[in-house]
Amino acid sequence: MGKTPEEEHPVKAFGWAARDASGVLSPFKFSRRENEEYDVTLKVLYCGICHSDLHFLKDEWGMSIYPLVPGHEIVGIVTKVGSKVQKVKVGEKAGVGCLIGSCHSCDDCANDRESYCTKQILTYSTTYYDGTTNYGGYSDIMVCNEHFVIRFPDNLPLDAGAPLLCAGITVYSPLKYFGLDKPGMHVGVVGLGGLGHMAVKFAKAFGVKVTVISTSPSKEKEAIEHLGADSFLVSRDVDQMEAAIGTIDGIIDTVSAVHPLLPLLNLLKSHGKLVMVGAPEKPLELPVFPLIMGRKLVAGSATGGLKETQEMIDFAAKHNITSDIEVIPMDYVNTALERLVKGDVRYRFVIDIGNTLHAT
Amino acid sequence: MGKTPEEEHPVKAFGWAARDASGVLSPFKFSRRENEEYDVTLKVLYCGICHSDLHFLKDEWGMSIYPLVPGHEIVGIVTKVGSKVQKVKVGEKAGVGCLIGSCHSCDDCANDRESYCTKQILTYSTTYYDGTTNYGGYSDIMVCNEHFVIRFPDNLPLDAGAPLLCAGITVYSPLKYFGLDKPGMHVGVVGLGGLGHMAVKFAKAFGVKVTVISTSPSKEKEAIEHLGADSFLVSRDVDQMEAAIGTIDGIIDTVSAVHPLLPLLNLLKSHGKLVMVGAPEKPLELPVFPLIMGRKLVAGSATGGLKETQEMIDFAAKHNITSDIEVIPMDYVNTALERLVKGDVRYRFVIDIGNTLHAT
Repeated sequence: MGKTPEEEHPVKAFGWAARDASGVLSPFKFSRRENEEYDVTLKVLYCGICHSDLHFLKDEWGMSIYPLVPGHEIVGIVTKVGSKVQKVKVGEKAGVGCLIGSCHSCDDCANDRESYCTKQILTYSTTYYDGTTNYGGYSDIMVCNEHFVIRFPDNLPLDAGAPLLCAGITVYSPLKYFGLDKPGMHVGVVGLGGLGHMAVKFAKAFGVKVTVISTSPSKEKEAIEHLGADSFLVSRDVDQMEAAIGTIDGIIDTVSAVHPLLPLLNLLKSHGKLVMVGAPEKPLELPVFPLIMGRKLVAGSATGGLKETQEMIDFAAKHNITSDIEVIPMDYVNTALERLVKGDVRYRFVIDIGNTLHAT
Repeated sequence: MGKTPEEEHPVKAFGWAARDASGVLSPFKFSRRENEEYDVTLKVLYCGICHSDLHFLKDEWGMSIYPLVPGHEIVGIVTKVGSKVQKVKVGEKAGVGCLIGSCHSCDDCANDRESYCTKQILTYSTTYYDGTTNYGGYSDIMVCNEHFVIRFPDNLPLDAGAPLLCAGITVYSPLKYFGLDKPGMHVGVVGLGGLGHMAVKFAKAFGVKVTVISTSPSKEKEAIEHLGADSFLVSRDVDQMEAAIGTIDGIIDTVSAVHPLLPLLNLLKSHGKLVMVGAPEKPLELPVFPLIMGRKLVAGSATGGLKETQEMIDFAAKHNITSDIEVIPMDYVNTALERLVKGDVRYRFVIDIGNTLHAT
C-alpha cells in the first residue's frame, strides 16, 4: 500500500491504461512481479481486443479498478520460466487468456472448469494473491503462473491466433459441453461478430451444418462464401424464420443486446438448446410454454477451463482455424474501440504490441 | 359429421362434460369406438383431476373442443383386448395417461419420447384419426390403442396410483433426463402441490437430498415430516435464500404463476439446472448474466414417453410411491375444481368413477 504501480514490483513494465470510466487509454508505466518458481514471463507480441475490454474500460459492469490495462487475448514468446515450470520453455510461443488464478480446490477446479470457480482471478482489473492489481495484455510483458499459460503450436499464427484465447474458447466450450459437436447436427449461430465468426469456423470443423442467423441481410454472402456457413436466416424475415421452425439442434447466441428469444426457441427441434454467450444487461423475456412443449433449454456459457483451452488451441492449429483480424498499432487503440462500439470490425482487432508499443 | 356424440360410435359411454368455457361439468351421454385389433377397453375405476383439466375446461389455452370430457389420469380394469394386443389381458389393472396417439415415425417417437411428437394426440379435447372428438377419463369406459396403455403392477393401488400417470411422470421424467437422479445430489422442488409432492417422493427414492422451496412457511412441517424432504426454504425469506446460494444441483419448478427466476438461479451450483414443469402464461424475466457466470440452464419439460411412463410406474410400485389423494364422488367434481383453483387440496383429487358415476 502506498506504493505506485511503477514501484510495487521489481520488474519494469509498460502499457496503455485507462485512468477512469471515460475509458480512454494512454501510455502507462507500471511494474510486474519477479518471475517466481511456477511463473512464466512472456514478451507480449499481440493482444486481441475483446468486447469485454470495452465494458471494463467504461466500468459498465461496476467492477473496474483504475488505472486499468485491458487485454486477455495475450500471445508472445516465453522469455523466462521458473525452476518448477514444466509446460513451456524459453523461446516458445505461448498465450494467456481470461484467467490468471483460481482456487484449485472447488468442484469446478477439480473438473478443469476454472472459468466457473467462484474465486477465479480475471486477467485484469482484479487483485492478485499478493494484494496488487492485475494488469492485462495491452502491455510489453506478462508474468503468469504456468497453470494459466497456454502452449501455442508452431503452425498457429500468433496474431490471428490471439483471439482464440477468449472468443475462440467462449464458443468452442459450449459447442462441446452441450453436445453440439456431433457430425450431422445442425447448429445455429446468432450474430456474426468476434464470437459468431469463430463459432461458425469451429462448428464447421466439427462437421455440423451451420446456419447463421442475423439481423443484417448484407452478411449473407460473407457468412456463406467466406466463412463457409451452410445457410443464412435474416431474423427479421418472418417467412424465412417460419420455414426454418424446428430444424436446428442447438444455437450459439452471441448477441449482447436485448433481443427476443421466442423466434430462436421456435427454430429449435425438440430437446434443442439455446446457449447465450453474449450478456444483455437487462433480463430477456422467457416464454415458458415453448420450453416445456419441446423440452428445450436456455443456457449460458462463459469461457473454458485451462485444459479445454489448450485442447481448443491444439484443435485450431490442426484444423487451421484462426480469427479474421485487423492488426492495428498501439496508438490506434482508442479509435479501434470506437469502431468496435459500432461493430465496425471484421472480426477482431489485434494490437501489434511487439512492433508498435514503445516505452515513452 | 352430423352425428351426435351419442350416435357416432357403436359403444355407449357416459361421463361428465363441460359444454362451454364456463367449465361447469354435468352428465353427458356419448359413445366410444368398438375395440379394434390393437385396442384395449378399460372399465374406468378412478380418474385424477389434473390442473390442466382446469385450463382445458375454461379454454384458457385456446384449444378446447366442447362438449369436453376431461381426465388423463385414468385407471381401471381391462375388459376387452383386440386380437393383436400383447401388453395387457382382460381382468388386469391398467391406465391411460396424457396421450392416446402419436406419429410413430419422427425422431421423438423413434426415441420413445412420444410426448414431444408434434403430431401427438392428447387424451381429450382433440381429434382422433377417424375424425371424431376424444373424450377423457371422467367417464365409465375408455378405449385406447395398446401402445398408450400402461400396465399397473398388482401392488400399486389404483386410486392413489392414478395421478402418477400425469403428475408422476411429469416430475420423474425431468429428474431422469436432466441427470438429477444421482444419489448424493441436492435437488430443489419449488411449489408443494400435485406435481411438487410427487417430485419430493421420487427424488427421495432416487437417494438425493431434497429441499422444498415455497412461499408458505406453513408447509415446512408437512414437507419434512410427512413427505420426507431434508430441508425447507421460504422463498420470501431473504436470509434463508442467501444462506442457500450455490448449494443445489437442480430444481424442479412446479409453479405456474409468474415468479422471479433469479433467486432460484442463485440457489444453483455452477452447471446447475432449473427445470420448469409449470407453465406461467406470461413470459418470465430471464437474467442472462447469472446463466453465463455459472453455465446454468433453464429448461422446460412435459410428460414422458410411454416406455418411460411404464418404467416410472414400475419404479413407483417397487418403492411404494403413490400420490397423496382426496377421493371424491363424481358429483363433487365442480366443487373440487373450485377448491383446486384455490390450491385447497392435499395433493390430488381423484374421482371414484367406479362407485359414483351412475348413468342417468
